Parts: sequence; C-alpha cells; structure tokens
Amino acid sequence: MSEDTDQIAEIEPEAEDDDAAYALNRRAVAAILFAVDTGDREKLIELMEPLHAADIADLLEQINTFDRRKMVELYDREFDGEILSELDESVREEVIGLLSPQVLTDAVRELDSDDVVDLLEYLEEPQQEQILDALEDSDRVAVKQALTYPEESAGRLMQREIVAVPEHWSVGEAIDFMRAREDLPDQFYHVILVDPRMKPVGYVALGKLMASPRVRALSDLLEPSFRTIPVDQDEGDVAYAFNQYHLISAPVVDEDERLVGVITIDDAMSVLDEEHEEDILRLAGVGEGSLSDSVVETTKQRFPWLAVNLATAILASLVIAQFEATIASFVALAVLMPIVASMGGNAGTQSLTVAVRAIATRDLTGSNVWRVIRREVLVGLVNGVAFALVMGGVGVLWFGQPLLGVVIGIAMIVNLVVAGLAGTVVPVVLEKAGVDPALASGAFVTTVTDIVGFFAFLGLAGAVLL
Amino acid sequence: MSEDTDQIAEIEPEAEDDDAAYALNRRAVAAILFAVDTGDREKLIELMEPLHAADIADLLEQINTFDRRKMVELYDREFDGEILSELDESVREEVIGLLSPQVLTDAVRELDSDDVVDLLEYLEEPQQEQILDALEDSDRVAVKQALTYPEESAGRLMQREIVAVPEHWSVGEAIDFMRAREDLPDQFYHVILVDPRMKPVGYVALGKLMASPRVRALSDLLEPSFRTIPVDQDEGDVAYAFNQYHLISAPVVDEDERLVGVITIDDAMSVLDEEHEEDILRLAGVGEGSLSDSVVETTKQRFPWLAVNLATAILASLVIAQFEATIASFVALAVLMPIVASMGGNAGTQSLTVAVRAIATRDLTGSNVWRVIRREVLVGLVNGVAFALVMGGVGVLWFGQPLLGVVIGIAMIVNLVVAGLAGTVVPVVLEKAGVDPALASGAFVTTVTDIVGFFAFLGLAGAVLL
Repeated sequence: MSEDTDQIAEIEPEAEDDDAAYALNRRAVAAILFAVDTGDREKLIELMEPLHAADIADLLEQINTFDRRKMVELYDREFDGEILSELDESVREEVIGLLSPQVLTDAVRELDSDDVVDLLEYLEEPQQEQILDALEDSDRVAVKQALTYPEESAGRLMQREIVAVPEHWSVGEAIDFMRAREDLPDQFYHVILVDPRMKPVGYVALGKLMASPRVRALSDLLEPSFRTIPVDQDEGDVAYAFNQYHLISAPVVDEDERLVGVITIDDAMSVLDEEHEEDILRLAGVGEGSLSDSVVETTKQRFPWLAVNLATAILASLVIAQFEATIASFVALAVLMPIVASMGGNAGTQSLTVAVRAIATRDLTGSNVWRVIRREVLVGLVNGVAFALVMGGVGVLWFGQPLLGVVIGIAMIVNLVVAGLAGTVVPVVLEKAGVDPALASGAFVTTVTDIVGFFAFLGLAGAVLL
Repeated sequence: MSEDTDQIAEIEPEAEDDDAAYALNRRAVAAILFAVDTGDREKLIELMEPLHAADIADLLEQINTFDRRKMVELYDREFDGEILSELDESVREEVIGLLSPQVLTDAVRELDSDDVVDLLEYLEEPQQEQILDALEDSDRVAVKQALTYPEESAGRLMQREIVAVPEHWSVGEAIDFMRAREDLPDQFYHVILVDPRMKPVGYVALGKLMASPRVRALSDLLEPSFRTIPVDQDEGDVAYAFNQYHLISAPVVDEDERLVGVITIDDAMSVLDEEHEEDILRLAGVGEGSLSDSVVETTKQRFPWLAVNLATAILASLVIAQFEATIASFVALAVLMPIVASMGGNAGTQSLTVAVRAIATRDLTGSNVWRVIRREVLVGLVNGVAFALVMGGVGVLWFGQPLLGVVIGIAMIVNLVVAGLAGTVVPVVLEKAGVDPALASGAFVTTVTDIVGFFAFLGLAGAVLL
C-alpha cells in the first residue's frame, strides 16, 4: 500500500463518468488494454497507478485469458500482493501461475498473515507449497498455524497481531505501552484488557482512550458492546454477530478462553457479502459460479441442478400421463394446465425465499414457526381465491365452459395453499436435517407444486367434465 | 448503552445451547413470555437485562401482536431507544404507538442523530412529528437537516459528529485537541485533515496516531485508503465502496467538497445486508416482505408478482392453443411439453441470477458483456445437447417413437440456448433502461423460455410427427 493519496483521489471524477458509481471506467479500460496490446510497459504502469488493488483485480477478472496473460507479464514486478488477495478464486490460480517466482515471493511477503491464509485456502497443493516457501520463517509458522483451524472458521479469519494490556492498567500506561511498541498492527480500534491467564475481560475504544485523562483506570472505560468469538466458530456466524451487535472488532478466544487473535469488521463484512452471494446463487441453482469461469466450468456447475429439475419435471409428466384419456377428449385442459402449475411454482418460490432468508437471519425460530406457516397458508388461500376468480373468468370466456372455470379456480386455490405450506415447511425441515435450505428447497417445493397442480386440475377435470 | 459488560457476557453460554449460534434461546423466550403473561414486571426486567437491544427487537418481531402489546406495556420505562432503532419497520410503527409519550421522549433522546434519522425515515407524518417534538432543539435541527438529503443517500446515513483538524498540525497538537474536547463522538477511528476551506485532504488512523512521536506531522501519516463520499450518493454505492476498498470510515462532502459528516463501516455493513436482502426477495418476486407482516400486507405484496406471472402464463397458453389440433391427435405431446418449458425456465433463472448479481457487483460491464453472453449461449448449447440426448432417450423408451425423441431433443437445445441468451440480455437491457434487473428480469425471461419452449416443441412436432 505505497500509493500516494493524491493520485488515488484522481480516479474519482473519472470513475463517475461511467453509468454506475465505482464501476471501472470504460475509457480507462480501453486505454489500459491498448497499452497491453502495444506492449507499452511505462504507459501501463502510469495508467494502473491510480487504481486500487481491488479495481485492478476486477479488471483482470473482466478481460479475457489472452489479455490477462499479456497484462500480468507486462506489469511484472509492479504486481503486488494486494491484487492477488482481491482476485476471485477462479482467476487467482491462473494469475499465480503467470507470475515469475521472484515477483510472487515479493508479492506474498507484503501481505499480512491473515491475507496469506485467505490466499492459500483455495489453492491446490503445489501452489500452496510455492507460496509457503516464499514466506519468511516466522510468517510461515503463523500461516501454518492458522491453516490448522477448520475452513471458514473464525481462526482462519482473524489476525494474530493484537494489542492487549493487563486489566488493571491506566490510560497513561496503555498509551506509553503503545508508543513504545515497534510492531503495532496496521489496523486496530480497541485495546483489549486481559486477565493474568490471557483471558479477555473487556476492551476500550481508541477514541475513548484519547479523550480520557492519563490516570483513569482502563476498566472504567469498557465498551458495552464487548463479546468474544470462539476460534472454531463458523465465519457466517461471526459475520452475523458483527452485524447484529454492531461490533467493530472482537477478540477471538481458544477453548480455554485465552486470547488468540482479533477479527475486524471489514473482514466480517466481506464474509457477509460472500454468504449472501452464495445464498442468492444457491437459490437459483447455480452452485459456486463466477463470471470469469470458463464455459466448461460453468456447464459443470449448472448441470446437476438442471438434472434434478429434469427428474422433477419427468415426475410431473408422469402425473399428466395418468390423465392422457381425459386430455385426449378435452384438449383445452392441455392448454390451461401449465397455468396452474406455474402459479403454484411462483407462489412456492415466494414463500420459500422468505423462509430461507428468515432462517439465515435467525428470524424464523421455534417460537414463531407455526405462526409463519399459518400466515403463508392464509396468504395462499387469499391469493388463491383472487386468482381463482380471475382464472375462472378467463376459462369461461375463452372456452365458454362454466365448469372448466370452476375446475381451474379450485385447482388454483388448492395449489397456492399447498405452495404456501410447502414453501415454509420444506426449508424448515431441511434446516433441521442439516441440509442448506437455500440449496435444496427449490427442487422440493417445485416438485410438490407441479404434482399437486397437475393432479388437482386434471383429476378434478376428469371427475367433473367427463 | 448503560448495560454492564459483565451481564452482557452472561448471555453467551445460554445462547449457544440453541441450534444456531446467536439464535434466541428458546427457553429464555419461554421464560420471558411467562413473565409477560403473569404480569411479573421485575422478572421480565431481570430476564431482559442481559439481552442486547438487537435481540430484544428480534424477540418483539417474533412474538404475536397480543404478546407484543403486553410486553411493551409491562416493560414500560425500561424500553430504550436502541430497541426502537433495531426494530424492523413493519413492527416499529406499532411499538411506537404503544409507548407512553414520556417513555418515547426518553427513548428517542438517548439516540445519536443518525439513528433518529433512520428511525424517522419510514414513519408516517404524525409519528414523525411526535418524535421530532421529543428531541432537544439542537438535535431536532440536525435531524431535520439530515432529512433534507434524498432518501437512502449518504446524507441520511452519515453522522454529523466529526473529528477534523487542520492539515498542517502535528501528532501532539491533534492529541491535545482531542483531550481538550468535551464532545468527542462515541465512535471514531480516524482524525480527518482539512484545508482552510474545510475540504478533507486525508485522514490518520487513531492507531497510527498512538504509535507516532508528538512532533511528527500528521500529513506524514495519511492512510492510502482515503476517499470521500458525495453527500447525495446512493447508500448502495456507499456500501459497495466500503466493501470494495476496505474502508473503515469515510468523510462525506457536499457539492463544494466541504466536509459535512462521516460514515462508518458498521452503517455501511447494515446497508449492504439490506441491499442483498432486497435483491434476494426481488428475484423471488417478494417486494419488501418481512416475517412480521400480517396476512393482508403479505398478500398485497405478493399479489402483483403473481398477477404478472399469470399474464405470462396465459401468453404461454395462447401459444399452446395454436397447436390444439396437434395435441388432440398426439396426446403424448401434452405429457412432455411442460418438461421443455421447465428446463428452459430453470436455465434462464440460472443465467439471469448470475447476470443480476454481476451487475450489482460491477463485474458485468461494457468490456465483458459480449464475452459473458457468448459464454451463456455456449453453456446453454452444451447443456442443451446433453439433456437432449437424455430426454430424447426417455421419449423413445417411454412412447416408443424415435421421432418424438428427436423433436423433444431439438426443442430442448433451442430452449436452453435461448434461456442463456435471454437470461443475460434481459437484465443488461433493463439496467440500461433504468429498471432494477433484480425486480423485473424473472418475468421477462420466463415468458421467453415458456413461449419458445412450447412453440419449438409443439411446432416441430406438428411438422414432423403429423
């Protein structure tokens, strides 16, 4: 992070020329690609200078493999560790492979140990080794230690550089201690008070330390927001705690309650962002997809979900096949039947999305699950009746058959009620069974609404119309 | 925020008894409801004491209207402003209506001005007035000023309490200035340097200030992460900037580039969380839904999307109706046709979700949109061919008609290619047209895949099989 602030400020007005704030400026990208194309190293360095590492990483993700290779090779020793940290996993491996060993070593040595851990986590064995070898001995030990904690746990997320003082110290003692220390972390916002066993007992915000007289006891200045995080806690829970309790930083403790590290809110915010992204993509049946994945990777990611969907669609077709005779003597049924299934599918998706989100935010619990189910069923009933009237009318007007209108109306009501029920019960049951409801609810709920929709409509039609 | 830290720490082991970390403990909730039921005010206060305001707010959202009323009335003067701040909008209005004027006044006066703004934003006029009247004069002016900024803008999000010093000061001068100030904000992490016109030129992290000798010039300690936020910037863009550039706090400037406030990362994190929530719910066609909305509210929220879906489903039915004669002479078509439409709908949802997210994260831009479209079409083609083979086989085995297998296979390929194309182009075009792609893409893409699916399958069948 050696950039000059003046130069960073320069990018802002440029960036705002573009449609969205903070989107990469199209002209700037074109100029950079031109420099890459003509092999003009000096121009490239000049153009990249004002860009934040996160923006350079975005740029590398957005261009094609060919340009990426040329750019990384041309940029060469200017390539710094921050860019690697910011790169999406899908491109990171490729870019690391393009860097010369010396550039990679320099890049990795610049990083804090928690960023190196983050970098290593998703790499293959040989690249992991390559990066571990590049580190200085002390850092290597720290990184290897962090890798012993479970994946996606607080232990992987925390930084090990901490500022902790004995609980009985005064403001003056703490300030003198910090002034004397050579290796204060880059980022810290609280001084953690520990007891003689290194158990954290509270923390004091730096701002409050600043504002207090030197003789004041630190224990008088404790923040009420204080809570500790167990080192093996899932990172999604960590992010939830930061958001729910407005934490800025939180001490991480081992199973003996001893202080082992600190997590800061910026890391928690990244996790929250990733977890949301994952939920959205899972709800849509797109595993871990990223925009820079290749056609082959993307096809592989999407295939399983489509295969599940094919199976459920065939199940629904088997239901329809039971009524072939009915349809043969009354083709209007074939015209109208997708409407009932489609409405049920959509209503079910509405309910399940609300339920999946509420489970993720701990808003759907044992104390309100029955009330939510009741609400969803009632909503299905009310909307079902409304659309039954509309669709019954359409059925009568279109096909001139009052009974057909009644049949589609009743099927609509049944299917929307079932959609509300299944849309809430399925995610709740999956969660209890330890399956991620974002991942699996969709397939189950759609199967239910398809089958119920076709069965109710065609079955009723067979009984009433023939 | 007068709670004792010891008591807060107590809740932790209890909370962890429950299934999910940080979920409200079911036994604790039952005990609280029992105290409410028996009107035992002292027990209620004792049980609520260890709970964070955010957890009390969650609890109020999860219980029913009747219990909520009793609890608020029993808790009475213990009710503090933080709880109001944390409450979901759907319940907030109701709870404010339950508080006695005196309790409301005390609760609101405890809050920082930015929290009061957040509280007021979504209230109706009379309740807004009631709360404004409760404020002290100076706060009322500050809040009214903040309300002049556009909704969901940086101006509404920022706090007006700032710590700014002249750019030429030394570390010692800054520390003395802060020690002398009576009214330092509760939360601040940087000292902002301003020029004589109050234009921010950089900032220094408190940690670095602590670690530096008194004579050091502040301008030597500037953080490279410094960037300013325009006061009228959309809060979603603010959240993006915090996440992208790892900001902890950022000065907010008016159109003359003068410092008017500061936004801190915890507020940006809340916004990021809300924006994601909104995107997920919009993608599922559930406007602004919350778990504590009533049946009537929920029905109203979901009706419009279902109505749009009904319209698109009827359009698809009109396509089927064109082929009534074909279906009448070959009922197997009615059995198989929903499969083609369903696979197209799912593939389209996959593509559009990836595109909508990539637009939100600025990853889908002018420089890669064509490559992404090409990728989605190719993925559709590859998956289409794979499922064409599977489904062709199923068609032959099930109905013993090789030609039927060919027809459904070709229709599958066509529909998955169209799904990839529409799934990417629709969100991009909607974004260009200024419509939120998360909200509207689904209806358009499903219409396309339904129509194309039915048309390709039935049209081809009519031409080939009859």
